[in-house]
Amino acid sequence: MNTNYQLMIETALKNYLPSGVFTEQTLIDSMEYSLMCGGKRIRPLLTLLFCELCGEDAKKALPFACAVEMIHTYSLIHDDMPCMDDDDYRRGKPSNHKVYGEDIATLSGDALQSLAFEIITSDDVANTISPKNALKAANTLAKYCGVLGMVGGQVIDIQHEGKKADITILQEMDEKKTAALIKASCEMGCIVAGADEEKINAATQYAHSIGIAFQIVDDILDVTSTSEQLGKPVGSDSENDKSTYVSLLGIDKCRELVKELTDSAIKALRVFDNDTTALADLALSLANRNN
Amino acid sequence: MNTNYQLMIETALKNYLPSGVFTEQTLIDSMEYSLMCGGKRIRPLLTLLFCELCGEDAKKALPFACAVEMIHTYSLIHDDMPCMDDDDYRRGKPSNHKVYGEDIATLSGDALQSLAFEIITSDDVANTISPKNALKAANTLAKYCGVLGMVGGQVIDIQHEGKKADITILQEMDEKKTAALIKASCEMGCIVAGADEEKINAATQYAHSIGIAFQIVDDILDVTSTSEQLGKPVGSDSENDKSTYVSLLGIDKCRELVKELTDSAIKALRVFDNDTTALADLALSLANRNN
Repeated sequence: MNTNYQLMIETALKNYLPSGVFTEQTLIDSMEYSLMCGGKRIRPLLTLLFCELCGEDAKKALPFACAVEMIHTYSLIHDDMPCMDDDDYRRGKPSNHKVYGEDIATLSGDALQSLAFEIITSDDVANTISPKNALKAANTLAKYCGVLGMVGGQVIDIQHEGKKADITILQEMDEKKTAALIKASCEMGCIVAGADEEKINAATQYAHSIGIAFQIVDDILDVTSTSEQLGKPVGSDSENDKSTYVSLLGIDKCRELVKELTDSAIKALRVFDNDTTALADLALSLANRNN
Repeated sequence: MNTNYQLMIETALKNYLPSGVFTEQTLIDSMEYSLMCGGKRIRPLLTLLFCELCGEDAKKALPFACAVEMIHTYSLIHDDMPCMDDDDYRRGKPSNHKVYGEDIATLSGDALQSLAFEIITSDDVANTISPKNALKAANTLAKYCGVLGMVGGQVIDIQHEGKKADITILQEMDEKKTAALIKASCEMGCIVAGADEEKINAATQYAHSIGIAFQIVDDILDVTSTSEQLGKPVGSDSENDKSTYVSLLGIDKCRELVKELTDSAIKALRVFDNDTTALADLALSLANRNN
């Protein structure tokens, strides 16, 4: 099931990029370089799985699934820039700006964000699902990826670099920086399927739990993993004197928290009538991942 | 009329920014710094005027008007960055990144783009105009501001810096870099009002003509104006060995072209039944501006 969905996502992402040869071809190449780079596609998968769970053909949520991946990709491109995290590598390959230059990298992030909103407001979407639901899903994405969502979380992260942060700030940061886009992914799947508020809220709860667990696992892996396993440098958090769940709570407490959050994510799925195995398995696999 | 609309735009723009005090307050301050900086507000004004011209209350188009201004503002913030045009001043004030740093400037551009799409997909919009029209207007904005629109135009501009470009490239660049967002502004006003294709096409034609004329006037002012008048350095095009309409066609031919384009913009308004004076006057004032 997930394998089919993964393939569906890869194909659709590629097809949403303009095809042909354009004067601004470099821009399209740069967008493709980061978009088609073998990411885990967790966010789009969540969108499809929640749409299916709410009783609708997952294909109807495909534009929204691809949009959230485009948003995620643009944020990675901008995050890696010298004026931000200054990372030369991403998923074991040179960062976008190392290949295309900072100017094109900035613009390709910008264009990926536009493309995300273009594909979820298209005539195709308006003819497939109710325009009212399409608008609501687009609004959900915009809200979670913006000033008080993902981008806001980035700012909180930047402002606490090299400073000790307390657990409250860390939670707010991760809620926005990581969990917000995961919430958008899950909620959009439900909204596209026309689910009621109870189900949308359950999706939010699931997303919150796996989102925070995801970030804690990241922090754990940064101290327990090797750079070969992760495809990026390890130990960077402590090197940057950055407060993490591990530095604030210790590794055992972190592992316990991941378990609790994963349980809570799986419990949140109880309100759904259909089979929730795929989403429960996904929560478990994210908790137990080693890269 | 326009004065009222200008005021309406200023108030709405300010109100769309999150109010209160947030952990990521710096981001909001940075967005406000560039958004509330006394720009001419031509694009949002066009949206309101076309909505009214198509027989609908201009207020209904206000979220779309503000959205296009947010997109315009984000593009200016990113354009001014050191990795792009490296401009220290904008409208006589320090550029966003000079005040807030490159990291916050990047993110505040990103968040302004998200906010643009957030406000035009809101429940308020869905309750005010038909969700189908709202989707179509949002799609129009996304399409014109993205990879084959405004951002694409930026890339063409960057790639021809320090190189002689021919008139074909210059036209494609300006069609995308400048005219695309003006098209979005005009078309959205019509779409919100539920106008038919003939009227939307006329708005596109008007936008194309004033958009190209606008760019040619920019090129003329760069050689004929003073930096006090413009609020930015003059002569930068020839300094950067940049091909412009003036360098390729000479100043007399340019002035003639501006006149022709303005006439053509005004002619395009003929299909509308209502009074087109405000839009005709706007076309003339843009052609005759000195800053």
